[in-house]
Amino acid sequence: MFRLQVSDHVSLQLIERHHAEGLFALVDANRPHLREWLGWVDGATEASTYQESVIPAWLQQFADGNSFTCGIYLEDELVGTISLHEINRHLGQTSIGYYLGEKGLRKGVMTDVVRFVTNYCFETLGLNRVVIECATGNVRSRRIPERLGFTEEGILRDAEKLYGTYHDIQVYAMLRRDWTKTQEVAACASSQ
Amino acid sequence: MFRLQVSDHVSLQLIERHHAEGLFALVDANRPHLREWLGWVDGATEASTYQESVIPAWLQQFADGNSFTCGIYLEDELVGTISLHEINRHLGQTSIGYYLGEKGLRKGVMTDVVRFVTNYCFETLGLNRVVIECATGNVRSRRIPERLGFTEEGILRDAEKLYGTYHDIQVYAMLRRDWTKTQEVAACASSQ
Amino acid sequence: MFRLQVSDHVSLQLIERHHAEGLFALVDANRPHLREWLGWVDGATEASTYQESVIPAWLQQFADGNSFTCGIYLEDELVGTISLHEINRHLGQTSIGYYLGEKGLRKGVMTDVVRFVTNYCFETLGLNRVVIECATGNVRSRRIPERLGFTEEGILRDAEKLYGTYHDIQVYAMLRRDWTKTQEVAACASSQ
Amino acid sequence: MFRLQVSDHVSLQLIERHHAEGLFALVDANRPHLREWLGWVDGATEASTYQESVIPAWLQQFADGNSFTCGIYLEDELVGTISLHEINRHLGQTSIGYYLGEKGLRKGVMTDVVRFVTNYCFETLGLNRVVIECATGNVRSRRIPERLGFTEEGILRDAEKLYGTYHDIQVYAMLRRDWTKTQEVAACASSQ
Amino acid sequence: MFRLQVSDHVSLQLIERHHAEGLFALVDANRPHLREWLGWVDGATEASTYQESVIPAWLQQFADGNSFTCGIYLEDELVGTISLHEINRHLGQTSIGYYLGEKGLRKGVMTDVVRFVTNYCFETLGLNRVVIECATGNVRSRRIPERLGFTEEGILRDAEKLYGTYHDIQVYAMLRRDWTKTQEVAACASSQ
Amino acid sequence: MFRLQVSDHVSLQLIERHHAEGLFALVDANRPHLREWLGWVDGATEASTYQESVIPAWLQQFADGNSFTCGIYLEDELVGTISLHEINRHLGQTSIGYYLGEKGLRKGVMTDVVRFVTNYCFETLGLNRVVIECATGNVRSRRIPERLGFTEEGILRDAEKLYGTYHDIQVYAMLRRDWTKTQEVAACASSQ
Repeated sequence: MFRLQVSDHVSLQLIERHHAEGLFALVDANRPHLREWLGWVDGATEASTYQESVIPAWLQQFADGNSFTCGIYLEDELVGTISLHEINRHLGQTSIGYYLGEKGLRKGVMTDVVRFVTNYCFETLGLNRVVIECATGNVRSRRIPERLGFTEEGILRDAEKLYGTYHDIQVYAMLRRDWTKTQEVAACASSQ
Repeated sequence: MFRLQVSDHVSLQLIERHHAEGLFALVDANRPHLREWLGWVDGATEASTYQESVIPAWLQQFADGNSFTCGIYLEDELVGTISLHEINRHLGQTSIGYYLGEKGLRKGVMTDVVRFVTNYCFETLGLNRVVIECATGNVRSRRIPERLGFTEEGILRDAEKLYGTYHDIQVYAMLRRDWTKTQEVAACASSQ
Repeated sequence: MFRLQVSDHVSLQLIERHHAEGLFALVDANRPHLREWLGWVDGATEASTYQESVIPAWLQQFADGNSFTCGIYLEDELVGTISLHEINRHLGQTSIGYYLGEKGLRKGVMTDVVRFVTNYCFETLGLNRVVIECATGNVRSRRIPERLGFTEEGILRDAEKLYGTYHDIQVYAMLRRDWTKTQEVAACASSQ
Repeated sequence: MFRLQVSDHVSLQLIERHHAEGLFALVDANRPHLREWLGWVDGATEASTYQESVIPAWLQQFADGNSFTCGIYLEDELVGTISLHEINRHLGQTSIGYYLGEKGLRKGVMTDVVRFVTNYCFETLGLNRVVIECATGNVRSRRIPERLGFTEEGILRDAEKLYGTYHDIQVYAMLRRDWTKTQEVAACASSQ
Repeated sequence: MFRLQVSDHVSLQLIERHHAEGLFALVDANRPHLREWLGWVDGATEASTYQESVIPAWLQQFADGNSFTCGIYLEDELVGTISLHEINRHLGQTSIGYYLGEKGLRKGVMTDVVRFVTNYCFETLGLNRVVIECATGNVRSRRIPERLGFTEEGILRDAEKLYGTYHDIQVYAMLRRDWTKTQEVAACASSQ
Repeated sequence: MFRLQVSDHVSLQLIERHHAEGLFALVDANRPHLREWLGWVDGATEASTYQESVIPAWLQQFADGNSFTCGIYLEDELVGTISLHEINRHLGQTSIGYYLGEKGLRKGVMTDVVRFVTNYCFETLGLNRVVIECATGNVRSRRIPERLGFTEEGILRDAEKLYGTYHDIQVYAMLRRDWTKTQEVAACASSQ
């Protein structure tokens, strides 16, 4: 129930143990869609695992100040999740991971959410560099950082492994010094 | 920044490390007022202690599902804190602790906040019993559960110790089965 | 084998791993009697659990200075147990829990033992407040603090849960300043 | 206060935090005498160290079932300590360490205490082998196992180090199968 | 003393506590040279820190199977170190870090050592991908992966921070499928 | 692959997780021979246990600086293991344990290896006393310290337990001050 309001219709909730059932239902209803680019989907077979180990581990990392995992809500429906991984205070750096179930797709939800979280990283956490890594073949996911003006920094070959097959990873990054500028350009573009 | 919206003007924020400065400033500005009934005030002498040990310990308890500690915000100003202590899932029970700095007093803030958190205990956490313990001499604090219809269950003699002196504790409790009823009566009374 | 001598016929022994068999036999022989007010009885199905987890946990708490659990011996026979729970050094406070199997009942054993342990709390541990909590329906158990002059401080509603049903708890407490006085009155009464 | 009664005048008490002052006073009053064969004496400079680290460590080992440390009481006066080190359940083996302050010497106290503890190892703990190791030059200490009929098994060269100097250790051991026999011979001898 | 023989003159030794003095001396003699690209150099002010915390932490990671740190020896003289960081078994991936003191420079030592360790990653550890990350300005260090045929995969902007200033990182990687081929080409080239 | 070269044909390798298969095969091929004096052989029924618990525990002890376990290689074949147990820095003392499969026997391998490791204890680790303990009936094993000039210090009765039966242990030790001398005598004797 602890919330970050992204827009009129979209909010994030810090995931706690009482979200286990809803979160499992989201994954369970979207297996074919999600498993294409997420290696852990086949292993997620019970809501109790979320309750007893997955969510406690996320909360532990949140308590340690190293990451957070939020549910993405469209009105009051859970449609996906977004996480910060390994917040490095010394380097002022973190990376963002996210997915949506079918119901959340094609509504601009994720672009708004990632914009909001990127802004949170710079404004609230005071970070300098935000990374998004996508398998090169994951076209839908790559569109998000591209729309938000993240820079393509390179392709890490064989750096992801899904169902026994290696995939290359496209690294996108946004630096604090480019963020305001990027947002203004984007705002300008969208207002035309 | 993770929020619970209590009313138009009042919200709660889960306290994270980046709140350390603000929280210390609140305590520091209200020492004479707060130390009367809070034993730890004199020991809170540095913001860094909040950053490095107090807040991490609160977050650890939140991650363990045993409690939470929130800042109370009036508009965007931090005016106090409220905590759940030791959420006992087996017994369906917890207790609430709270304080306000001078700026938050006499505006009905705490009554709204405690009503909200009590409701959260019954509705979101599914608990059965919510306890508030006040030193018998702490008249201002006792008014909150009294206004909200909590039952006085007894007085625990010498159960609190402040600056070397024992104090008696008045135990107030609300049960889930009385909560809706109580709220209706209260709403009714206030609408007359 | 580490003992506290209560009276000519009654002693306490700090429970160690080698008491596991005897302790399990006591519980096993008194299930119908004990389970009425003790929620853990049905779960105690093997002596090995005492050996490997229950007794080590008690010893750990003893080592931490937070509690102890002793067997009650009538002559050389184990007839019950008595524990201190959560010794709070700052508040100078603890609570006592106890039970007897059938063989130990109706001989004044428990009154002597609780008097002895209460005295131990004040004299050896230097505490200020000793609490005994009994379900309101547990008449036999309530007689002990009543005979020893403990004060009834209040009734905590729904504060215990046994086999899915909530029970109210009667809180009894003895303060150090009342103990000597109480004992003299009791001695005086019993000598008439 | 948890006791083992050795004889009419001598008892052992499991050492808890509240014995810290008394134990430090014993060591402090006997430094020249004790430091000859105990390497830790010079490092024991404050009662608070016993309270906060030495005694908690002993209690932790007791809770783990690996050892115990008792105070030796002559009437009600603390005159020394005795410990079991590293109780090995698989091999059925432990070793005994002990010392007395001046007031406890030359009264047969230690012989009685070591006989009692050895018996405790065989009878209560069910062990098979009890070891006593003494520096070869520690004549007073060596007399105890010799009087009790322990066997000299060998001399471990340079196996102890005191104040930078190596000492040889004489290993004495008693086996369960020899214990009853030895005691009878001893009883017989002393009754003549 | 546990060794990997790299060539007739060069070997690696797994660093243990008894290497602390030698390792500190190496760093201490090369501060101006090393601190340019290594952020921890100014903080390395005592050999005892290596003995008590740095080397134990490295050994712990080695024991966990996550990394190793070796001294580089030219004949019997310690001239630098090389480490594997975060061996990821699932992804079959690790990264290599290294430095040399002045005495080890300009002798081809590091090229031989990194070739050997890369080979060790593929042959002994069975990994698929080996990464080397160098600040873009660290020309000397970049020459090693370039000579060994590693691929430049991209430049991570602001991904390193030295003395308060951000630096870009050039990512080099070698894949198992390219390694044999690369080595043959290199051997071929060097034999002409 | 981290090695200590003992002689032209014999070397030691620090055992890491990737040695699990080979080590299990050695034990599995030598069960009748090894189980006579090693109590753990019957319990070693799967290579995965070496991979997941035995070898990680050895590496943990190595990381803690308390011991190491190496494979003994004759040319490139694993023929046995040798370990240091509980390196005591304060006393400058450790003990050596070892075994060979059939293929390594009767070639002087173990005498060379134990001489090398004893030397390592004195020269590299700077210890003062090296112990070898053999069951008195284990004639083959006893020959090693006897050939190397270790002193018989005594017989610890019932100090080992194999398959429910107690065995006596012969304690052999070598002191640093005798080592060089012993080696010269041995060299002298063998050159005649």
